[in-house]
Amino acid sequence: MTYELHYWPTIQGRGEFVRLALEDAGAAYVDVARQDDGEDALMDKLHDGPRPSFAPPFLVDGNQVVGQTANILLHLGPKLGLAPTDDPGRLWVNQMQLTLADLVAEAHDVHHPVGMGLYYEDQKPEAARRAVEFREQRIGKFLGWFETILSRAPEGDWLTGAAATYADLSLFQAVEGLRYAFPHAMRTLEPKLERVMTVRDAVAARPRIRAYLASPRRLAFSTDDIFRAYPELDPPKG
Amino acid sequence: MTYELHYWPTIQGRGEFVRLALEDAGAAYVDVARQDDGEDALMDKLHDGPRPSFAPPFLVDGNQVVGQTANILLHLGPKLGLAPTDDPGRLWVNQMQLTLADLVAEAHDVHHPVGMGLYYEDQKPEAARRAVEFREQRIGKFLGWFETILSRAPEGDWLTGAAATYADLSLFQAVEGLRYAFPHAMRTLEPKLERVMTVRDAVAARPRIRAYLASPRRLAFSTDDIFRAYPELDPPKG
Repeated sequence: MTYELHYWPTIQGRGEFVRLALEDAGAAYVDVARQDDGEDALMDKLHDGPRPSFAPPFLVDGNQVVGQTANILLHLGPKLGLAPTDDPGRLWVNQMQLTLADLVAEAHDVHHPVGMGLYYEDQKPEAARRAVEFREQRIGKFLGWFETILSRAPEGDWLTGAAATYADLSLFQAVEGLRYAFPHAMRTLEPKLERVMTVRDAVAARPRIRAYLASPRRLAFSTDDIFRAYPELDPPKG
Repeated sequence: MTYELHYWPTIQGRGEFVRLALEDAGAAYVDVARQDDGEDALMDKLHDGPRPSFAPPFLVDGNQVVGQTANILLHLGPKLGLAPTDDPGRLWVNQMQLTLADLVAEAHDVHHPVGMGLYYEDQKPEAARRAVEFREQRIGKFLGWFETILSRAPEGDWLTGAAATYADLSLFQAVEGLRYAFPHAMRTLEPKLERVMTVRDAVAARPRIRAYLASPRRLAFSTDDIFRAYPELDPPKG
């Protein structure tokens, strides 16, 4: 069974949370839009059928098409061995994933506060205003929540204790994106986020993730992506 | 079994999507923060235990605490008879709910583009800029997606065909909120959203929902809420 992942071919974006899960599990998948004519296939399929997706990413799994990042992971988690086997555990991982989705949406809105259809260059003053709150309050609040969870988790260093789930992989991705976009803010925050950084390092050290990150399949961060390194939005500390 | 819903006591907000499901099913529940000392109970419980919530709403169901609106509904849907019984069907309803959550977040960001910690009065010019795209593109794109789904749904007038799910109730709430906050924009859009409006009317006519909407348990829309009626953000059409 080969999964088809449909996502924009030139950015990590929200698709990266799905890619990391598929890669970590060693699952057979095609990143459709990165194949020849694949972006046409994505656009054809996006609005197709009785269960169209509002936006990429979406996953084709046999006859089933599943959209919305957290929903794709909810579907894949048990199949890939990256979710708890009990219902309350699966809901809890979904809850953490949805909170990461909120963080990702806020990280995007920092550089697009006025409109996603406008260029960053057309909303720079507004972005500078919004970045202050995100840097000084929101990043710490979100990652601090994960630090608290880790401090209370049962035996083990993962978010749910003994075994990694897709939420751990997604937390890794959020930290990587934040480090790229807000290096100064993160340098200040990281000493208070020891457990989160342990998860980040443990994910990076997983053999299949390490191989993936070193491969051409891993796209680079860029200022066309959700996390964007604009120095004016993360000035050095005084 | 009485559910405990924890949400801010004076607004509909995201808690309303859960209230509508509980009310429609005639479920026994306590809206905790609206009881005496209930807001203290909410704050005590919010950050408590091994599975704290990042923010309200959260639901206490026996020993289980579930946070994130869409996740609460994922949990409640099958118990309340408001979700399909098959896994692909439940995922599809969750996918629609997550897309409604994106719409709700964007509706909020219209009046808070620069920072959720600031007052609207401190970001009025930015809000006016952001409102243009939301009014002219985003509302139509989101509700048009639901119109397409309804046009392709199997027999029946609900999003999944023959039976109402919590996504139909949530679509009702989104339409009500948008009508309150953007009456002029909605007047222009509604003629192209016939099926969505049929769902809206059908939800409003369900006996328990009708009784709820007429009761003091249904809070009024207000400019302290997610959907806000600021005339300058929805000017009359020329």
